[in-house]
Amino acid sequence: MTDVVLLDNPHLTSVPGFRASGVACGLKTDGALDLSLICADVPCAAAAMFTTNRVEAAPVLYDRELLQTRQRVQAVVINSGIANACTGERGLRNVQQVAEWVGGALCIPSSAVFVMSTGVIGQHLPMSKIATGIADASRVLSTDGGYAAARAIMTTDTRPKEAGAQVEIGGKTVTIAGMCKGAGMIHPNMATMLAMLVTDGAVERDVLQSALETVVDRTFNMITVDGDTSTNDTVLLLANGKAKNAMLADRASVDYQALVDGLLPVATALAQSIVRDGEGASKFVTIQVTGAPSSRGAKRVAKTIANSTLVKTAIYGEDANWGRVICAAGYSGVEIDPGRLSLRLENESGSLHLVQDGAPLELDERRAAAILAGDEVTWRLDLGLGRAEATVWTCDLTHAYVDINAHYRT
Amino acid sequence: MTDVVLLDNPHLTSVPGFRASGVACGLKTDGALDLSLICADVPCAAAAMFTTNRVEAAPVLYDRELLQTRQRVQAVVINSGIANACTGERGLRNVQQVAEWVGGALCIPSSAVFVMSTGVIGQHLPMSKIATGIADASRVLSTDGGYAAARAIMTTDTRPKEAGAQVEIGGKTVTIAGMCKGAGMIHPNMATMLAMLVTDGAVERDVLQSALETVVDRTFNMITVDGDTSTNDTVLLLANGKAKNAMLADRASVDYQALVDGLLPVATALAQSIVRDGEGASKFVTIQVTGAPSSRGAKRVAKTIANSTLVKTAIYGEDANWGRVICAAGYSGVEIDPGRLSLRLENESGSLHLVQDGAPLELDERRAAAILAGDEVTWRLDLGLGRAEATVWTCDLTHAYVDINAHYRT
Repeated sequence: MTDVVLLDNPHLTSVPGFRASGVACGLKTDGALDLSLICADVPCAAAAMFTTNRVEAAPVLYDRELLQTRQRVQAVVINSGIANACTGERGLRNVQQVAEWVGGALCIPSSAVFVMSTGVIGQHLPMSKIATGIADASRVLSTDGGYAAARAIMTTDTRPKEAGAQVEIGGKTVTIAGMCKGAGMIHPNMATMLAMLVTDGAVERDVLQSALETVVDRTFNMITVDGDTSTNDTVLLLANGKAKNAMLADRASVDYQALVDGLLPVATALAQSIVRDGEGASKFVTIQVTGAPSSRGAKRVAKTIANSTLVKTAIYGEDANWGRVICAAGYSGVEIDPGRLSLRLENESGSLHLVQDGAPLELDERRAAAILAGDEVTWRLDLGLGRAEATVWTCDLTHAYVDINAHYRT
Repeated sequence: MTDVVLLDNPHLTSVPGFRASGVACGLKTDGALDLSLICADVPCAAAAMFTTNRVEAAPVLYDRELLQTRQRVQAVVINSGIANACTGERGLRNVQQVAEWVGGALCIPSSAVFVMSTGVIGQHLPMSKIATGIADASRVLSTDGGYAAARAIMTTDTRPKEAGAQVEIGGKTVTIAGMCKGAGMIHPNMATMLAMLVTDGAVERDVLQSALETVVDRTFNMITVDGDTSTNDTVLLLANGKAKNAMLADRASVDYQALVDGLLPVATALAQSIVRDGEGASKFVTIQVTGAPSSRGAKRVAKTIANSTLVKTAIYGEDANWGRVICAAGYSGVEIDPGRLSLRLENESGSLHLVQDGAPLELDERRAAAILAGDEVTWRLDLGLGRAEATVWTCDLTHAYVDINAHYRT
């Protein structure tokens, strides 16, 4: 296992060779920051994953093609407030224009510019505001700008989400940092809501992509807020090579494992921060499924439980209504055996065994209430069928979630 | 097309040859009715469909086996308050005991008794209360008892749900009536929450089953409240033959079509009544998907939209946030072509075209607001790919839904 040092107060700009900024260009009506710019001193190896939604936002279509024809990225521009999704040809032309403006402002090719958007679906970008925003953001790029950049990508998020770590790769200290945003339409599937990771490690592009996929599968793909997979989900990982480790080009190497080990806690912290700040969330919920016949089955059961509105509202109400957990496992589509199920309710204060061999044990309501009163709660379901397991993180479904989403657009 | 006459003020007991009752035996703490008994004068041909949840409640396991070994049913007992699900061997022994008590009270074989339960999962039936309830209910069985029976199966339902119709089959007037209950854990899949239909038609058992499956597929299986498929879903159809039509034994006959045509409006009314009374519902929502490459694909897209918490909260907030509808279609798993999508928002007051060829049209916010202010609203999505279509009925997601489900058990 690699030694991983978590960074205090981490920002994207904690990684040498990256500058960033965040400005307000009027996309958000309250004057909050809404445009982020990140610029590397040199072109970076780039790996990315995108939404599996068949309706892809214009920037997703653009970035996918960009990375197919070009593997190095030097700048990233992200706007919040408008998703530029369901915007047809005009939406695509707007992304191209945004990339050209950024390229011009930074004196780099527009083809080295990666573009992300998040916000309301179905509206066109107000291009004059974006133009002003890009000009402003490029003027204030700095090695202290990571925090502003993390704030400028927020939508219904209540706080910025950042994480960072250091690992040793090939005898050199390599720094990894990231930022992301939620907070609704969160059910990432081979990608996530907007997330951006950077490192100063020297890593070949294919190896970087492989490491990203491994890490995303265990982090961003294991969270859910509301079961909705967005049109704009994107996670990007840039590596600028400034750490001067020997180029990492072998997936079987110790160095590759160190890279994955360094990325994992950063991505885990970011993914969990999305759930902790899920729309209206009052509790952080872990669904752990063990004893599954396959990893795929374990994930499916865990995600089905995590997306049940009945499970989520019961957790909000601090009601030990465990039948809803068993019920959700039952309709997950996985061939479970009801007579082998074992269910526990847990947190730091204790573990309560509720179901054994599919039948209820005596329920100690006081102990259950004590566990459910905490800010974090775990449902641990053992299927009794095999050795595979999965952990999914989610949040409860609250009155505040309904408040936020009844009037998001208006 | 068959002439179908809808009944005014319909009850199960509108059908000749059926008596019913509903009593309070203490399963509900507020003293409301909680045990229904329905008794036919003669053994009836019986057809049923059950939940596809892998965790089946004890009565579902019992009834499945009952109908495999015996095809005629004379009495049905239904308790609300406790689902008798996840109750292991003891739960199964309790169902057997309930059937024996009913058989004894009515002087019929216990093997002619069908048992249903609905309510909290994971609790055992309080058998002494049930025994008293069965004795009481059997004493007050009457041809006026349908309404009491419909009230006694309610859980979070705010009103009883009944429907009835008459059709002509083989020159005889055949009456069909039904009752059902919701109101949460509603995402029936080849079955529904508890529903019971009776008719005085003379129908062979296999033909009856076939008609039931046809009808359920277009009614109870096309509704969703919260996406959760219950452990207890059951729909039962009994036919006592009192109408004295020639025994219906041919699925290709005009009479068979008349039976289906008579069952359809009854089942549709019942299914829609579940959605109208969905937990916390303030609006009745129709999701109509047209232009799909297959019927299966149309259903999948429609159900995905109907289950999106973001779509449902936006409808509650009367926000024309159509991007969420397109987004949900995108992650439905069906191969749609974003550039062919056409979306309309409709109700009686008008139809607003929002998306054409995947791109947004100018949004008339005032007209959208006028449509969304109604009690009923339709999202009509054309995929532009084929001729198949599907209609799913659902409701909005409201603060009241969270209220109800945060503290259902406690």
